[in-house]
Amino acid sequence: MRRLAVAVLASGVALGASLAAMAQMKPEDAIKYRQSAMFLVGQNFGPLAGMAQGKIPYDKDATIRYAEIVAFVSKLPLQGFQPGTETGGNTKAKPEIWENMDDFKAKMEKMQQEAAKLAEVAQSGDFNAVKAQVGETGKSCKACHDKYRNK
Amino acid sequence: MRRLAVAVLASGVALGASLAAMAQMKPEDAIKYRQSAMFLVGQNFGPLAGMAQGKIPYDKDATIRYAEIVAFVSKLPLQGFQPGTETGGNTKAKPEIWENMDDFKAKMEKMQQEAAKLAEVAQSGDFNAVKAQVGETGKSCKACHDKYRNK
Repeated sequence: MRRLAVAVLASGVALGASLAAMAQMKPEDAIKYRQSAMFLVGQNFGPLAGMAQGKIPYDKDATIRYAEIVAFVSKLPLQGFQPGTETGGNTKAKPEIWENMDDFKAKMEKMQQEAAKLAEVAQSGDFNAVKAQVGETGKSCKACHDKYRNK
Repeated sequence: MRRLAVAVLASGVALGASLAAMAQMKPEDAIKYRQSAMFLVGQNFGPLAGMAQGKIPYDKDATIRYAEIVAFVSKLPLQGFQPGTETGGNTKAKPEIWENMDDFKAKMEKMQQEAAKLAEVAQSGDFNAVKAQVGETGKSCKACHDKYRNK
């Protein structure tokens, strides 16, 4: 049941209603929106990476919760990359995002898929499987950061 | 199936793993965490309130998506109110939170429950029901803001 919920959710939120149906935000709010979502993802992914690297003890329940949050919240930042938010605030987003929106979206979706898989794998309690999937998810974060985020 | 997912989710994330199993954050991160989550909730609740007030046209799909996000993300801020984060950053949290943590948690949980119900009602496409539940959810936000947040 939980696994089902995770799976449904992972696909459901992105597909259940199109982004187009959602209102545009004020540009400064859109930037803050994507940054807020990314911060939440990072704070929940951090301990998963720490466990995968053996820096903190593996905890199945905590892993499930962190991974569920990462899987859900990873669906949110894209909405904040609306037109007209290439600059402003303290954004680290590179202008190349808006020149390559299809590629950017594809990389975001890849990351969302890896995070959804991580939330499923977390349920198994199999540390080695979790560790491997944390690695895949981290790679999908990095692919986008390397190309589209200023240091 | 979607309804099931929402229902499971609404109860699952809070209960699936105890907050205690999760690592403490650095105090400045904890403050930013709760503020980030609240910002996401606010940005998604805003259009729901706008629709309920007739300021923007009712859109069933958008309502479902906004409400799902509010229901999920409303579960996150509590983790950021960890001990030692009474001051710092630009927090508007009143110190009374930590003196009345049980009451604060109860108010947060009430809000999470109203948001979960909103996500269910959104599925119905019944505007009047949505409108009523947006009102209940808004009241549950306000109850906590009035008592525990500085202006």
